[in-house]
Amino acid sequence: MSKNNSLAHFEPVNLYEFEALAKLKLPKMVYDYYCSGADDQYTLQDNIEAFKRLRLIPRVLIDISAQDISTTILGVPSSFPLIIAPTAMQRMAHHEGECATARAAAKNGVIMTLSSWSTTNIEDVAKAAPRAPRWFQLYVYKDRDVTAKLVRRAEKAGYLAIALTVDTPRLGRREADIHNKFSLPSHLTMANFTNDDGEKSHMEKGSGSGLAAYVASLIDRSLSWKDIAWLKSITRLPILVKGIVTRADAEIAVRNGVAGIIVSNHGARQLDTSLATIDCLEEVVAGAQGKVPVFVDSGIRRGTDIVKSLALGAQAVQIGRGVLWGLAVGGEEGVDRVLKLLRDEFELALGLCGCRTVKDIRRDMVVRTSELSFGL
Amino acid sequence: MSKNNSLAHFEPVNLYEFEALAKLKLPKMVYDYYCSGADDQYTLQDNIEAFKRLRLIPRVLIDISAQDISTTILGVPSSFPLIIAPTAMQRMAHHEGECATARAAAKNGVIMTLSSWSTTNIEDVAKAAPRAPRWFQLYVYKDRDVTAKLVRRAEKAGYLAIALTVDTPRLGRREADIHNKFSLPSHLTMANFTNDDGEKSHMEKGSGSGLAAYVASLIDRSLSWKDIAWLKSITRLPILVKGIVTRADAEIAVRNGVAGIIVSNHGARQLDTSLATIDCLEEVVAGAQGKVPVFVDSGIRRGTDIVKSLALGAQAVQIGRGVLWGLAVGGEEGVDRVLKLLRDEFELALGLCGCRTVKDIRRDMVVRTSELSFGL
Amino acid sequence: MSKNNSLAHFEPVNLYEFEALAKLKLPKMVYDYYCSGADDQYTLQDNIEAFKRLRLIPRVLIDISAQDISTTILGVPSSFPLIIAPTAMQRMAHHEGECATARAAAKNGVIMTLSSWSTTNIEDVAKAAPRAPRWFQLYVYKDRDVTAKLVRRAEKAGYLAIALTVDTPRLGRREADIHNKFSLPSHLTMANFTNDDGEKSHMEKGSGSGLAAYVASLIDRSLSWKDIAWLKSITRLPILVKGIVTRADAEIAVRNGVAGIIVSNHGARQLDTSLATIDCLEEVVAGAQGKVPVFVDSGIRRGTDIVKSLALGAQAVQIGRGVLWGLAVGGEEGVDRVLKLLRDEFELALGLCGCRTVKDIRRDMVVRTSELSFGL
Amino acid sequence: MSKNNSLAHFEPVNLYEFEALAKLKLPKMVYDYYCSGADDQYTLQDNIEAFKRLRLIPRVLIDISAQDISTTILGVPSSFPLIIAPTAMQRMAHHEGECATARAAAKNGVIMTLSSWSTTNIEDVAKAAPRAPRWFQLYVYKDRDVTAKLVRRAEKAGYLAIALTVDTPRLGRREADIHNKFSLPSHLTMANFTNDDGEKSHMEKGSGSGLAAYVASLIDRSLSWKDIAWLKSITRLPILVKGIVTRADAEIAVRNGVAGIIVSNHGARQLDTSLATIDCLEEVVAGAQGKVPVFVDSGIRRGTDIVKSLALGAQAVQIGRGVLWGLAVGGEEGVDRVLKLLRDEFELALGLCGCRTVKDIRRDMVVRTSELSFGL
Ligand SMILES: Cc1cc2nc3c(=O)[nH]c(=O)nc-3n(C[C@H](O)[C@H](O)[C@H](O)COP(=O)(O)O)c2cc1C
Ligand SMILES: Cc1cc2nc3c(=O)[nH]c(=O)nc-3n(C[C@H](O)[C@H](O)[C@H](O)COP(=O)(O)O)c2cc1C
Ligand SMILES: Cc1cc2nc3c(=O)[nH]c(=O)nc-3n(C[C@H](O)[C@H](O)[C@H](O)COP(=O)(O)O)c2cc1C
Ligand SMILES: Cc1cc2nc3c(=O)[nH]c(=O)nc-3n(C[C@H](O)[C@H](O)[C@H](O)COP(=O)(O)O)c2cc1C
Repeated sequence: MSKNNSLAHFEPVNLYEFEALAKLKLPKMVYDYYCSGADDQYTLQDNIEAFKRLRLIPRVLIDISAQDISTTILGVPSSFPLIIAPTAMQRMAHHEGECATARAAAKNGVIMTLSSWSTTNIEDVAKAAPRAPRWFQLYVYKDRDVTAKLVRRAEKAGYLAIALTVDTPRLGRREADIHNKFSLPSHLTMANFTNDDGEKSHMEKGSGSGLAAYVASLIDRSLSWKDIAWLKSITRLPILVKGIVTRADAEIAVRNGVAGIIVSNHGARQLDTSLATIDCLEEVVAGAQGKVPVFVDSGIRRGTDIVKSLALGAQAVQIGRGVLWGLAVGGEEGVDRVLKLLRDEFELALGLCGCRTVKDIRRDMVVRTSELSFGL
Repeated sequence: MSKNNSLAHFEPVNLYEFEALAKLKLPKMVYDYYCSGADDQYTLQDNIEAFKRLRLIPRVLIDISAQDISTTILGVPSSFPLIIAPTAMQRMAHHEGECATARAAAKNGVIMTLSSWSTTNIEDVAKAAPRAPRWFQLYVYKDRDVTAKLVRRAEKAGYLAIALTVDTPRLGRREADIHNKFSLPSHLTMANFTNDDGEKSHMEKGSGSGLAAYVASLIDRSLSWKDIAWLKSITRLPILVKGIVTRADAEIAVRNGVAGIIVSNHGARQLDTSLATIDCLEEVVAGAQGKVPVFVDSGIRRGTDIVKSLALGAQAVQIGRGVLWGLAVGGEEGVDRVLKLLRDEFELALGLCGCRTVKDIRRDMVVRTSELSFGL
Repeated sequence: MSKNNSLAHFEPVNLYEFEALAKLKLPKMVYDYYCSGADDQYTLQDNIEAFKRLRLIPRVLIDISAQDISTTILGVPSSFPLIIAPTAMQRMAHHEGECATARAAAKNGVIMTLSSWSTTNIEDVAKAAPRAPRWFQLYVYKDRDVTAKLVRRAEKAGYLAIALTVDTPRLGRREADIHNKFSLPSHLTMANFTNDDGEKSHMEKGSGSGLAAYVASLIDRSLSWKDIAWLKSITRLPILVKGIVTRADAEIAVRNGVAGIIVSNHGARQLDTSLATIDCLEEVVAGAQGKVPVFVDSGIRRGTDIVKSLALGAQAVQIGRGVLWGLAVGGEEGVDRVLKLLRDEFELALGLCGCRTVKDIRRDMVVRTSELSFGL
Repeated sequence: MSKNNSLAHFEPVNLYEFEALAKLKLPKMVYDYYCSGADDQYTLQDNIEAFKRLRLIPRVLIDISAQDISTTILGVPSSFPLIIAPTAMQRMAHHEGECATARAAAKNGVIMTLSSWSTTNIEDVAKAAPRAPRWFQLYVYKDRDVTAKLVRRAEKAGYLAIALTVDTPRLGRREADIHNKFSLPSHLTMANFTNDDGEKSHMEKGSGSGLAAYVASLIDRSLSWKDIAWLKSITRLPILVKGIVTRADAEIAVRNGVAGIIVSNHGARQLDTSLATIDCLEEVVAGAQGKVPVFVDSGIRRGTDIVKSLALGAQAVQIGRGVLWGLAVGGEEGVDRVLKLLRDEFELALGLCGCRTVKDIRRDMVVRTSELSFGL
């Protein structure tokens, strides 16, 4: 993204423009994999529209000359309330892949979550950005030894928490991947695995989605609440559960000793026509009863979305695709721009609402149209 | 649909793509007849949108490693809760017509309902797929002898139930059929009738819809509840009523001793601006008071739609057009693919909701936006 | 519309297709005048969408073999519950203009309302179709002698009622007419007036809408409730008020001794963003307290719309533009087709709802989505 | 706009057509600056749609032959309840800029508000139209001397009130301006400032929006309620606050002794996804408790919008972009046409609602769809 490369000709000013540029640069198979939601992509659309249905109520004539938007997440300082969500196979977007993302995270003082299905391994990402606060996202394999090894490597490499993904016992139906017969390009590997492990690091090219076949053959559909105890027995890292959307499950999670809950519908890639996460957030926050922090992702595209998420009880948001678009557009610098853009948008929105700090955000700054004395 | 025919070049991955392919293959008059709804096709659209308005609420961390999606319908095992709805004149879609459908039903272990207006007769369909569980859909003719003969032939040929269609005393206004002057192509016949019967097996080409003229001249507009008793007097087969959308009519149906109720608006082909069936289902289920099973059709296109239908009280769903598109695309193999596709989608959706079996489906897995503590 | 003219090539099957054909045939200025609503035409659209928001609830297994859709309107038999609304200047649509309309009304046994601004005079229309039941629509001129003369001529020529239009003290802003500098083509006249009357029979071509200028200079903005008494003093014909949309005004109307109320927003040509009339109907019916019949127009395009109007308390509906499109497409025969089309659609919709006669129509056959136990 | 220039060929009949013509005439950078809203421009759209969601309820048979639409605003007569909102840099639209606007205001007997960021200075505008009732809109600079000087100059030049803008501690994100690297064309200046003042009268061309940079460097983010007292201490002009959207802030404003409140979201240019102002108006009116007048702007495009605003409690409305489009299309004459157009539309709408004067406007003439006994 330096002056003399092609990006210089068009400076994207929002995540949608980053996506448009990324689409131009990426092979169709890769772009499709990144952008797709499940089935009719109804929830994909709703994830975004749900934020629009929430309206901000700005207060005025409040001195905002000294804004401070930093926060603390599980004891770790964050420059603003945003976490990079785990997204698989980032080297399809840019040859530096997960390393570029980690370095941009470090530079911006935000947490990066590494996917189990990264194309750079746990240790190399740690080495590339030792100062980036890092979480590790865990998929549980039928072979529990494989799973345990991943957890221990993450712990050893200085990752600060395990985000256990709980919404993917089977892979959602992403139709573009089926048409494209999506699989990891042959020069890349699922870098956390070696064939010696007994797990495949390559994905087979088959008749449909190679990833769906991979998940069906290797990921453990029997995963259940009792496995939280097992995980806690093999690591001292805090365990977050990623993919909870109900109050009932939030209550169970708290009883099972999780350290945090991530409200997510996996960017609408799993169960189509499920609710937008922002419409589930308050219920989950109620279920968490203030005992553990609640995070939210899926559909966040704007600084105003972050304000709304915090107003409804989230401690921070996660960003999935947005980071991938930055990565595709300009590697580390692209991710850096995306993070700065969201940071700027968030700070501005916060200020225009009349808030100096994230603590100033109150529930009544956001209104559902149904909460008004009249409907819209 | 074998490797070396044209379909090999494009593998449809959902019912919409099956329809798109079918549209390419079928003569306009046939495609229009199959796809049309009545008048402005408002209910046609609403049948589908109504499912989108219902949102799924997935629960997580439930062991779904051993899913079993089979069920039992009126005492007959079904591989999953789906029935092939009766659709007329299937040999317009594919030369093997109803036989191809019946064989695909047998292969997939689901019930096929044969239309009174089939282009293959009752006995030939039975012979083509003796092991397919089969229902016979009945239209009541002004000439009650003709009607009685149909019922007795179905009983004799091993059909398991009579689905009496009650929403068609007159034919709905399908404007494309009027413009096309739709009539059955001359090489095909309404195969259950011979001209010797006193009923026409050919349809006359007229100034408007040939089918509308056929119905106006032959079908009995005086059909009423008392005819259920008459039907029961001439057959020992269970009688289902197809086309009920109100609680009141469900209650009357139960009092009249029907064996089951099919909530249907005839795929939106009869009365435009009537409610989507999924929006009527719970009322009808309430009217049935658990005394007879309730089924639903009209607008089901996705596995998630089946989950929602069962959550709202249906025992199984029926599929009309979807099967026709499969038939048009690839005959028996096409129907087979459609059934497998819906089966896969259903199983996946069920699993992602956290259910192992159809019995695990609960009302609270689905939410109307109006049932939320807030509106959407 | 005979076999050897151009219409034979395309048979419109609904009012929308009649409009599309009319648009092809009419000069732009004329089509625009006929189709336009006021301002942004928001109510124009809502008049139609409001009917779609109302859903029909069909009942089944009712003997409808002997349907009778006739009714009685102010003591006069009508073949079905439809009245031709007054629309101005019909000879712009077809050279036989109002005479063609009147003859088609006579043939179909429905009432025709003649506009004050007809291009054929009161007496000639009466002569053209002596057996057509006819109402006369009255605009009140500043010059009350002119007004009184119109009323007396209508009475003398056998018109059965006066429909006093009350929503037009000033003409609504129809922007296409302003752009087109709309005025009556010079070979036509406002035929109920002669220049000797002191009123102009020609419309001047000006800088904006000629009709708006005409209304501003001649029509009486001071018209008020007390003028009902005046009207009753000069004629023994029953007086209906056309253009009421509130319960309060309906109550006042009844107190002032009107013979009937026509709920109308003038086909959305007067005050944009006013409510769709079907959304006002029940309120007005409540205001009328069963003392006078209530009619409704604006936005009726389908037989189902007529069923809904009657279910909500109207005794009959009026059709404005639909008749003009028929007239433009085929003169008397075109109007005849439009009337038969609506008649057929109405009879079919009624039957599919499970009704034999208009008396069988009940309020609970139609539902607002907000009346359901759940929202849509 | 005289006969022999290009406008003669197309006479715009509503504000949307004025905008379309303006877009043709203006450089892209200027048009974009004028039309843009913040971020996704969701509130921009909602500002307009919110008026459509409000429906008018016309009453009939009321003598409206003598309409009088004049009113009084803070003691000053106004020919109708409309004020010209402050909009910056009007000489980009037309070389006579703010002077043309002021002269048109004088001619039409309405108040013009001059922006702090005008391209003609306070005194020259006063001189150009001495008889125009004028308000001065104030932005508070970090350098309070600069600010105080502006206030005193306005007072001295005969401006009648200060409208303090309170919704712009930072500039909203208008993405077109960022892409265009918007800045004031070099032949124009922020005319109220001279470089000698210590404030820049030129805007620097930078990497993003020049105006955003200008605001960030010069405008005071610490502005708070206590500054109302400061302002009152330096001028005897009444102080209005512009940009309030909550009841709570309205109450504080009253307690702080403001002379009026302008409900505004800055034409949707500041905080995207905030509520449409017409949806906030009643709350603010409640907060004002009848102690100070309430005005409203943002999204007003039609005479009916003015009626609705008054029905919901506003004393008058403000028009921002509409005036700019008039100015761009035809300078003083263009603004004059826009004002006359809105005046005509308002008078007509008022009359069609059955009102003679603005005092006749009642709350029950407007209905939110949610206030009906049924939903829409
Ligand atoms: C291309 C892609 C890959 C993803 N890979 C993973 C993954 O490996 N593990 C995981 O838990 N979530 C994964 N997710 C889900 C994200 O963590 C996150 O929940 C989602 O992207 C948030 O929605 P957003 O993209 O709208 O911001 C992935 C999402 C995308 C778009
Ligand atoms: C082309 C076509 C023909 C049909 N023929 C019959 C029929 O002969 N008898 C009947 O009871 N229903 C008939 N139906 C209605 C179907 O049984 C079923 O109710 C409807 O198709 C379900 O809606 P879907 O198409 O959205 O799945 C027909 C529907 C279609 C589309
Ligand atoms: C072209 C046209 C001319 C009309 N002229 C009159 C008229 O002269 N007098 C009157 O009371 N209503 C007049 N109306 C209103 C109609 O009587 C009627 O209220 C309206 O057309 C009903 O709406 P619809 O067109 O949607 O059926 C006119 C309407 C149209 C479209
Ligand atoms: C181009 C433009 C410039 C504006 N400049 C100012 C300004 O200098 N000061 C201010 O208080 N408001 C300013 N506004 C906001 C207007 O005063 C007003 O609130 C808004 O335009 C009303 O919305 P409308 O454009 O939909 O009528 C500006 C608006 C526009 C469109």
